[in-house]
Amino acid sequence: MGGGYRDAVTTLENFVLRGGKRVRPAFAWTGWIGAGGDPQGPDAGPVLRACSALELVQACALVHDDIIDASTTRRGFPTVHVQFEERHRAGSWSGESPHFGEAVAILLGDLALAWADDMIRESGIGPDAAARISPVWSAMRTEVLGGQFLDISNEARADESIDAAMRVNRYKTAAYTIERPLHLGAALAGAGENLVSAYRRFGTDIGIAFQLRDDLLGVFGDPAVTGKPSGDDLRAGKRTVLFALALQRADRDDPGAAAALRGSIGTDLSDADVDTLRETITSLGAVADVEKRIGELVDSALTTLAASTATPEAKQHLTDMAVAATRRNS
Amino acid sequence: MGGGYRDAVTTLENFVLRGGKRVRPAFAWTGWIGAGGDPQGPDAGPVLRACSALELVQACALVHDDIIDASTTRRGFPTVHVQFEERHRAGSWSGESPHFGEAVAILLGDLALAWADDMIRESGIGPDAAARISPVWSAMRTEVLGGQFLDISNEARADESIDAAMRVNRYKTAAYTIERPLHLGAALAGAGENLVSAYRRFGTDIGIAFQLRDDLLGVFGDPAVTGKPSGDDLRAGKRTVLFALALQRADRDDPGAAAALRGSIGTDLSDADVDTLRETITSLGAVADVEKRIGELVDSALTTLAASTATPEAKQHLTDMAVAATRRNS
Repeated sequence: MGGGYRDAVTTLENFVLRGGKRVRPAFAWTGWIGAGGDPQGPDAGPVLRACSALELVQACALVHDDIIDASTTRRGFPTVHVQFEERHRAGSWSGESPHFGEAVAILLGDLALAWADDMIRESGIGPDAAARISPVWSAMRTEVLGGQFLDISNEARADESIDAAMRVNRYKTAAYTIERPLHLGAALAGAGENLVSAYRRFGTDIGIAFQLRDDLLGVFGDPAVTGKPSGDDLRAGKRTVLFALALQRADRDDPGAAAALRGSIGTDLSDADVDTLRETITSLGAVADVEKRIGELVDSALTTLAASTATPEAKQHLTDMAVAATRRNS
Repeated sequence: MGGGYRDAVTTLENFVLRGGKRVRPAFAWTGWIGAGGDPQGPDAGPVLRACSALELVQACALVHDDIIDASTTRRGFPTVHVQFEERHRAGSWSGESPHFGEAVAILLGDLALAWADDMIRESGIGPDAAARISPVWSAMRTEVLGGQFLDISNEARADESIDAAMRVNRYKTAAYTIERPLHLGAALAGAGENLVSAYRRFGTDIGIAFQLRDDLLGVFGDPAVTGKPSGDDLRAGKRTVLFALALQRADRDDPGAAAALRGSIGTDLSDADVDTLRETITSLGAVADVEKRIGELVDSALTTLAASTATPEAKQHLTDMAVAATRRNS
């Protein structure tokens, strides 16, 4: 097609191939194996391609999210919209550089989403498997877009409820990152209703715990390890479960702390301000509460998994993945 | 999912159902009938659903294009991003209203694109038809996104070449609006290579002619009929074939006119400036040139169609549609 489209697509390709933890394909693939899929068998190649398509959905989600969050770096490189903004500026092209960067990033995100579907359709899985995964694939995309919508909507409306924050965790993270990928793997293998149900409960629990860990890292994480500025979520005004719990407790026990939390979230905080807020959140007991919830969710998930009909090998893998997802420090 | 997602989706639903010419589904459906599809037969329902999915791709294209072009109205209503910007402002929510509007519109456009795929997959067409349309569907989405990319890229780089403008017409309009929809209809019906090839040549010619007519309307259209401000393309700095032809002729015949064209495109023109530019473009012969090209493309398309194996009824319909698409005044 000429005109620089290939170069633009190369930027997208580099973005997809350059990094990322591949969490979603890994859960889908492990879910498939746990439901009896044979990694040495003839279905393995097509199934691997179908699972990998999740990374293209993720590329769309990240590229568009980075516009929405006005993020400038991702995976250690300038975000896609920033790359095109810089290219525009370097070329002294006409129009506004930031707007050009966003426009190109919108289109490349769309392309990744379209190609995700192409990749599923051209994966080589049979028509029966394709029919089985179709509703899972549909639900997953609708859920993650809904979760992203709820996220920005809660932030804009300064929704302080634990319920609202939990809904974002449920759809933006848990369903999209673990529950539906496992469900997809199960559907690819033609798993029965019992295993599907076990996977989904396991995935929801671990997915929410994964996000709760993220909430803690967003406030208490070590910038040298997470790669994000210290206290990033507080400055960005993220309405996390951690923050909602802190507020709830402050409203009950400590009106001064409640006023301090409300007055500082989403503002341009100094490092000293962040330290003070951390102490407030901790002393309110919100950190211990979130750690307790993570522990309960992991216990519940592992109990569900142990009682399921997943293969022993997959149980071991999923247990390791669950622990890694919820006890990480980055 | 709660949290206002349903309301947001209702905005998208209203956008899709409220209007539009349904050009793409109409060409796809007529293409299917012309290849032997029976509108009274059992395939008609599934085929109609598959053709209608094109309107969801178009919803994504328009919602995202309106962000990219910073357009405030579409189909007589505020654009989607403006609607959410206004909702944000009316609610005195936190953050910047324009940014919130764009963020929601990015997500709703993504949702429309995802649902377009869902609609194809759940249309009820058989696996053979699904396999036949798969490469057409893939190509169409990649082409239209490429065409949009080339469009903004040409504008940013102030590319003056007729070739660059023609490439945008080819991919952003012709392939996406007529060629691929007809191809899709033919593939749904299992048409042979000859008819597919005839449809594609017809579609490319009419699609380009359609866009050339649009170029003329963008400069000379009556605002009362087109619904767009007079001389809109000149103010917006659109790099159309019309403009490229005018520049080419000015460079050859009239350096003063060339300087005037280059100095005014993409600037904040008064109505009097627009009138002057119109006279310049006309007196350079660019309008006559574009009209001649439109006439030749329509002739070529109708000759191709007449010689094809499409059914007589479809030939009549496609001829009428071709004329309507290229002789309209809005």
